[in-house]
Amino acid sequence: MLLPMSPADSIFLMVESREHPMHVGGLQLFVPPDGADSEDVRRMFQQMVGADDVRPLFRRRARRSIATAGLWGWDEDGAFDIEHHVRHTALPRPGRVLELLALCSRLHGNLLDRHRPLWEVSVIEGLADGRYAIYFKIHHALVDGVSALRLVQSSLSDDPDERDMPPPWAARPKTGDAPGASPHGLIDDPAGALRSALSIAAEAAGLPGALVKTVSRGLRDQAAPLSFSAPKTMLNVPITGARRFAAQSWPIDRIRRVAKAGDATLNDVVLAMCSGALRAYLHGLDALPDVPLIAMVPVSLHVDDHHREGGNAVGVVMCNLGTNIADPGDRLAAIHASMTDGKAAMSTMSPVQIVAMSAIGLSPLALAQLPGVQSMFRPPFNLVISNVPGPRAPLYYNGARLDGVYPLSIPVDGQALNITCTSYSDALAFGMTGCRRSVPHLQRLLGHLDAELDALEHAAGVS
Amino acid sequence: MLLPMSPADSIFLMVESREHPMHVGGLQLFVPPDGADSEDVRRMFQQMVGADDVRPLFRRRARRSIATAGLWGWDEDGAFDIEHHVRHTALPRPGRVLELLALCSRLHGNLLDRHRPLWEVSVIEGLADGRYAIYFKIHHALVDGVSALRLVQSSLSDDPDERDMPPPWAARPKTGDAPGASPHGLIDDPAGALRSALSIAAEAAGLPGALVKTVSRGLRDQAAPLSFSAPKTMLNVPITGARRFAAQSWPIDRIRRVAKAGDATLNDVVLAMCSGALRAYLHGLDALPDVPLIAMVPVSLHVDDHHREGGNAVGVVMCNLGTNIADPGDRLAAIHASMTDGKAAMSTMSPVQIVAMSAIGLSPLALAQLPGVQSMFRPPFNLVISNVPGPRAPLYYNGARLDGVYPLSIPVDGQALNITCTSYSDALAFGMTGCRRSVPHLQRLLGHLDAELDALEHAAGVS
Repeated sequence: MLLPMSPADSIFLMVESREHPMHVGGLQLFVPPDGADSEDVRRMFQQMVGADDVRPLFRRRARRSIATAGLWGWDEDGAFDIEHHVRHTALPRPGRVLELLALCSRLHGNLLDRHRPLWEVSVIEGLADGRYAIYFKIHHALVDGVSALRLVQSSLSDDPDERDMPPPWAARPKTGDAPGASPHGLIDDPAGALRSALSIAAEAAGLPGALVKTVSRGLRDQAAPLSFSAPKTMLNVPITGARRFAAQSWPIDRIRRVAKAGDATLNDVVLAMCSGALRAYLHGLDALPDVPLIAMVPVSLHVDDHHREGGNAVGVVMCNLGTNIADPGDRLAAIHASMTDGKAAMSTMSPVQIVAMSAIGLSPLALAQLPGVQSMFRPPFNLVISNVPGPRAPLYYNGARLDGVYPLSIPVDGQALNITCTSYSDALAFGMTGCRRSVPHLQRLLGHLDAELDALEHAAGVS
Repeated sequence: MLLPMSPADSIFLMVESREHPMHVGGLQLFVPPDGADSEDVRRMFQQMVGADDVRPLFRRRARRSIATAGLWGWDEDGAFDIEHHVRHTALPRPGRVLELLALCSRLHGNLLDRHRPLWEVSVIEGLADGRYAIYFKIHHALVDGVSALRLVQSSLSDDPDERDMPPPWAARPKTGDAPGASPHGLIDDPAGALRSALSIAAEAAGLPGALVKTVSRGLRDQAAPLSFSAPKTMLNVPITGARRFAAQSWPIDRIRRVAKAGDATLNDVVLAMCSGALRAYLHGLDALPDVPLIAMVPVSLHVDDHHREGGNAVGVVMCNLGTNIADPGDRLAAIHASMTDGKAAMSTMSPVQIVAMSAIGLSPLALAQLPGVQSMFRPPFNLVISNVPGPRAPLYYNGARLDGVYPLSIPVDGQALNITCTSYSDALAFGMTGCRRSVPHLQRLLGHLDAELDALEHAAGVS
């Protein structure tokens, strides 16, 4: 029996092509518990593959037929094949993070098999430092990026001694004793996360209207704070199917100290790091425009714990990144001013809508599918920079400590680079996903981000 | 500048979809020379990626545009990126052939990036026995399966002491002293192989006509030896994008002894092994039809060394596999009779045509693109079983001995399983490529092949 799919979800199937895989991804790094031997990852993999009670969300696949008049729906995969979805792989020597990022770049560029439930997980061994990694990939039609992070992290525990924990796709054997939710964040509430994930279709149903509304306003009302003249850059071109992924973490405390000294928010400093890194990167390729780059930045408006299930209020700010300003301190001040101005004019959306919007990036590609938007001659912005708050307490999976979480997002035509940040414990992780051809030497951005944080600390007098 | 692409080559681009990647592959296993250490594979990879003189064939990519009226052509990739094409990867523990086949299954199911030259190579380390592997993948529009094997093997040497050998995609630094060609086979003639590869477009130009002619005759003339009523089986269904690959070698001497005792050809015994294995496999899934399966078998007609460049005469036999016969000896006799009868009615084609034909499998999918063939209600045959002769002498790459070569072919709608065999040195390798969903438990065929060879030896009294 075919269950209906919301039009918002089916957009991700309709606009997908070999150049535009519409899946989000995540990379988790784990430190095995003391005394773990080299066979433990293999045993963990076998246990994961052996999970026999797979949640309905992970068993359903997208289908359409003549009988549905070509509309997409969901049905259950009658020949569900866990070994297709969960893979065991390894890094070649010397097993550095470099090899891990190269593997994730390749995995993220491959299309999911549409005849099956739209998710894959790779358990990755072979890091020289003894850690292991898990890369997961979920189609945006099945679950949005935030809910994907929630779902995966809902399978973790804050108890390092907990064992016999099932993988994220397995139904929980015990329902009564959900681990205690911490007071902050969207992600560290397993029970709520599961309910949220299952109500995504309903939540996302308002997406196309919100998208069209926001973009139309930006296009029509050129004087409004929402609209900018984003320059054409090398990032705003048609893209190819291959991907490059780079990721690194920095201590939140360093970023917080710069924010405090500059009377800015933590997110302002994140944007300033991105701005400085993009400036250096584009300058190095002789491709820095004279006018500043514009980033679309989703920001949190209110945090009201009582209405979490109904969706937090989240807004979009079109942020002038000040990439034309040479001085790091001046650039941070400009970004802070732009964000402060922008928040006044924000429209509100649910978190699911905002993530969906970030993912399809308001690209002409996606918008051409929507009613009311025909074409655009300039990019409405140059890239999406989002920052998804994560859990503050250390998390564990069967005794292995989660050491880092790095998001992989979706570049599209016109938006060849996406930057997504997520916090976890005492670090802030930057995940940059780009088209391999349009964004060459993507990994240089890591060095530029590092240099920019140094420069910001120096400018703020906190280095 | 866009160079023209022959209509025959562009068919492989036109019929390709996410369910039907149109690339062929090969898996090579190497034994490192004595004294090689674990860093050698990494050094080899770095040397391969460092090759700066890449042959034009490996730099060209497929393009079409409004300017070409949508027709496909070739141009040079102006931003050729060797690290996209040549990858370093590793097997997870315990590093058995099982893990290697699982990796190849996954790699073979992923589409090539059409914005780039249509090939990829993975250097694979981590086999527990100390061997390393190379998996290569080349689009059929760029080069057909036989020529792909030739090209790759033309980079090998019969001299175990030769070093500083370039990878297959690099132009040879020395042109004067091509290694001595052995007297037999299509493959072990590097100079000829290269010339052949470069003239593929011309050779394959006659393909669509030959295809239509052969199929039309089979359909119209129901009394001719070419036509059979192949049963509908689980192998003759629409397919999905994921693949399963299984491969194993057996000593040619064992197969030859059975052939001699049964007054049959070596190829007859190969077909009998496949037949017995398919019978056991289908029986185990309660899916064995009452009427015998029909295989399309390309066979060599003449071997005329003086006309090799112009293409050997190769024919197609529709072979009654006798899968309804329980006794292995009787089945071999039936296959031998069917092959003998069939050869009298063969049409002739060039080797390039026959490989192209094998690859697209005369499926309704491919044929729907061809003029003159509209639809078919039964499969013209149940699967393609081909046997490509390989080099008899051991080959080496920078001192590492080539231990085995396994072909990966192209399942298509209606032909969910392909069996391709190739000989090398004293072994015959069977490579089976199937749709992961339509051909479950594909690896069982390996055990069935092994049991069938035992049974044939027993029946022939040579065990």
